[in-house]
Amino acid sequence: MQRKIRIFDSTLRDGAQAEGISFSVEDKLKILKALDQLGVDYIEAGNPGSNPKDLEFFDRAKRETLHHSKLAAFGSTRRRDIRVEEDANVKSLLTADTQTIVIFGKSWDFHVTEIIKTTLDENLNMIRETLSFFHEKRKEVIYDAEHFFDGYKANAEYAMKTLGAAVEGGASCLVLCDTNGGTFPDELQTIVEAVKAAFPVEVGIHCHNDAGMAVANSVLAVLAGATHVQGTYIGFGERCGNANLSTIIANLQLKRDYDCIPAEKLKDLTVTARRIAEISNIALNERDPYIGHSAFAHKGGMHIDGVTKATRSFEHVSPEAIGNERHFLMSEVSGRNTILEKIRQVAPRLDKNSPETDAIMQRLKELEHMGYQFEGAESTFELIIRKQLGKYKPFFELEHFKIIGEQPSSGEYSSSAIIKVKVDGTSEISAAEGDGPVHALDRALRKVLTTFYPELAKVKLTDYKVRVLDTRSASAAKVRVLIESTDGESVWTTVGVSTDIIEASWIALVDSIEYMLLRELEKKMRVYL
Amino acid sequence: MQRKIRIFDSTLRDGAQAEGISFSVEDKLKILKALDQLGVDYIEAGNPGSNPKDLEFFDRAKRETLHHSKLAAFGSTRRRDIRVEEDANVKSLLTADTQTIVIFGKSWDFHVTEIIKTTLDENLNMIRETLSFFHEKRKEVIYDAEHFFDGYKANAEYAMKTLGAAVEGGASCLVLCDTNGGTFPDELQTIVEAVKAAFPVEVGIHCHNDAGMAVANSVLAVLAGATHVQGTYIGFGERCGNANLSTIIANLQLKRDYDCIPAEKLKDLTVTARRIAEISNIALNERDPYIGHSAFAHKGGMHIDGVTKATRSFEHVSPEAIGNERHFLMSEVSGRNTILEKIRQVAPRLDKNSPETDAIMQRLKELEHMGYQFEGAESTFELIIRKQLGKYKPFFELEHFKIIGEQPSSGEYSSSAIIKVKVDGTSEISAAEGDGPVHALDRALRKVLTTFYPELAKVKLTDYKVRVLDTRSASAAKVRVLIESTDGESVWTTVGVSTDIIEASWIALVDSIEYMLLRELEKKMRVYL
Repeated sequence: MQRKIRIFDSTLRDGAQAEGISFSVEDKLKILKALDQLGVDYIEAGNPGSNPKDLEFFDRAKRETLHHSKLAAFGSTRRRDIRVEEDANVKSLLTADTQTIVIFGKSWDFHVTEIIKTTLDENLNMIRETLSFFHEKRKEVIYDAEHFFDGYKANAEYAMKTLGAAVEGGASCLVLCDTNGGTFPDELQTIVEAVKAAFPVEVGIHCHNDAGMAVANSVLAVLAGATHVQGTYIGFGERCGNANLSTIIANLQLKRDYDCIPAEKLKDLTVTARRIAEISNIALNERDPYIGHSAFAHKGGMHIDGVTKATRSFEHVSPEAIGNERHFLMSEVSGRNTILEKIRQVAPRLDKNSPETDAIMQRLKELEHMGYQFEGAESTFELIIRKQLGKYKPFFELEHFKIIGEQPSSGEYSSSAIIKVKVDGTSEISAAEGDGPVHALDRALRKVLTTFYPELAKVKLTDYKVRVLDTRSASAAKVRVLIESTDGESVWTTVGVSTDIIEASWIALVDSIEYMLLRELEKKMRVYL
Repeated sequence: MQRKIRIFDSTLRDGAQAEGISFSVEDKLKILKALDQLGVDYIEAGNPGSNPKDLEFFDRAKRETLHHSKLAAFGSTRRRDIRVEEDANVKSLLTADTQTIVIFGKSWDFHVTEIIKTTLDENLNMIRETLSFFHEKRKEVIYDAEHFFDGYKANAEYAMKTLGAAVEGGASCLVLCDTNGGTFPDELQTIVEAVKAAFPVEVGIHCHNDAGMAVANSVLAVLAGATHVQGTYIGFGERCGNANLSTIIANLQLKRDYDCIPAEKLKDLTVTARRIAEISNIALNERDPYIGHSAFAHKGGMHIDGVTKATRSFEHVSPEAIGNERHFLMSEVSGRNTILEKIRQVAPRLDKNSPETDAIMQRLKELEHMGYQFEGAESTFELIIRKQLGKYKPFFELEHFKIIGEQPSSGEYSSSAIIKVKVDGTSEISAAEGDGPVHALDRALRKVLTTFYPELAKVKLTDYKVRVLDTRSASAAKVRVLIESTDGESVWTTVGVSTDIIEASWIALVDSIEYMLLRELEKKMRVYL
């Protein structure tokens, strides 16, 4: 029988403490829905009393129907030396109107006497009374024992007493927190076992990654008897971040048969990670286990050869299981076979030792040397192969363009572009304005080409990324521009490299349009086949 | 007594397998020197027979004097069914001319029969004979047992036999590799102990991060008796990467008193990470333990309060120990105290409840909402405080600028800029060309201002970063531009945000120049005090 592990996500609370993260209320609601859809058990989201944003969030969250997750509000034990009913922060938690309340308190004697400056006994009262306050109101009360491992190592007897106070107060789950993130796995496992043996309630684990061991520590806590795991979905949080739940869920459910989220949702692990990264406006770490773009990216020739024979030779799980994909990377170490497989998609009968294949290899090496990367830009890669094979005819010729940027700007837009192109002997000129030079150029190019190719009207840019390749020469540095486009049905990505951001963007824009027109042409031809 | 752990870095070999990494020979030599300077025991760098770049590298590396590290060449056991003396790849290893040779071979019966397609006995011969070949030539031979943990779990008896063959061949160290990166810490530790008990030679560990547990697995292997740890310095490698040595060294040496690198070099852990990231042309993961910018960045008000009272309240080690720094982040959750501390650097006597302080707080919130981040741009932050306090007078006024970008370009540069500014009632106009619009604008602005402020001649841009903030609106997305400048003595960073990359760059450029002129003015005034 599968053992159930309750997954508790704190992206909206501990995650918001990460450097570079700043959620709007809209962002928080979107993340709430994404996590509920994935099927985590709890979603923690701060204290409505701490700031107006959280207040608005809980107010709007009430109107959302959650299908799987319970929403939890988070707050501290009461302050020292006052009655719990008089503590404004404690009372404000009730306005969140959640069935689940998470209260954190101190386990480490040093923190009690030196940081919050009270007595060891008063701290026990603070824990017991705060939890009772919510327990009597029939709330589910989860207790976060802050700094539990450091506390246990400094004074085990006292740390255990704080948990005792929490159980007396009505805690249904004791969450052991490695708040400073420095606990080693050997000591962590021993301590979890001791707590598990001493108390009759559920035990949880909350790890931080300051020693790079948050995932392993969480997994080992589960092996030692914890059945509730806290973390943030893609791992961001205060300092080095929290335990990465996307990794922990995959580890426990795929490899040790625990039940963390509904089985049919496992394949959404990857897309959920991308969605949360996008809402949070951060770049996903592409080397993250399971869900990163590189997680199943093979580059070494021998690895690619092995995976081609049997995927498990160099993959510990199947990428399909979590909705990710396998990639064979193209590079000087990847070997001819990978590139050949790509070439065959364009020219199925090309021999791997032919002069054309050699010419393509040579061209790729040159472009890579210039700073091109095709790993995320398959459409540009396909066009390069076509150009080398002569299976390509430009859809238009640029006669010239001119972009003007001005400050102060004379109207709504600061940039304008004039462009003249020729298609089949006919010239056409047009102009457009935009926010910045690339925007103006993009609009002008589409506008002038739509007179020849009306199907371009449905294309739009969905992503535009700039990477500075060599920061040492500052504003004259080489940049790589990646452009993602869509016609509403499919999505394709193209790349351009130059020391001039406009030229790099131009190269990628042209490829994007040519690629789309080529696809349209193929569709039309198919009718006659 | 401290127990010695031999640190074996494979950035130049396994690290080169990472997505997005492509080293030149120069890059490799720079990394070699950085790692030697840090004092790792071994640096592994590929096979001179595998490609001309590696051949050139070993040739040039011979001429380098290494002060601490041993350079190692890496290759496979001989191919099946030929004599070891006839295997070109094996022989080519000798041309590296290194005292240490690393040979990898198969431990997993499935790989032997299904991937390299030979018999279990022939694989044992391949291991034994290849190692003997180098051992007889008085090389130090390290044996990498590929897929050892998967092999042990599938067929423990055979996996142990492969190690036996390596010992017979003269291996001085048996390195157990979790090649697919999927091994759990509990089973890993048991298996390391079994190997340690069975063989009289040194045992090493080589982990990959596909389950997010490479660091913990390496640490647990050491606790189980391994004394040789392989990884890459900042963790990049095939797929999810290798065990991160910067984390492992800090964990073992700071927290368990192992001896990994010379004690006086610990404080270079952070700078070495930055150096290797820069040479590799990748962005360091700023959330990386110990060496990341966020590793000691405190944002939550309570955490900042705690750290101010006693650093160990929310820090598991001191940032100084590894040459990193503590940061208090400014944000809506960071509390007034952090911002106040910054304000006091400009206006030491300002009261924390004054209307000016409120006005600054308000302005910061507005700017953060627009997409500004001051975490890495302290100079812009200081100018904002000055502006709010009226302690600021612009050094020049922009009358207007115009930038023109053209394709095809008429000369060396594709962009040109005309700019007119006014200083103390005197107008001046100038123009410059550049690679792209920002480069042209930067040059024109410096040129026209140098007529008024000759000290600007010594300023130059050292970094220029573009971050697209909201990729959803594509080429009209909001961008944040960070500019780093230097006058040869100090370095300062400024930031600008706009939907127009030129405007964002302009804002940051102006701040950069104003900040420098302000510093110069202060220096001059000091003479009269």
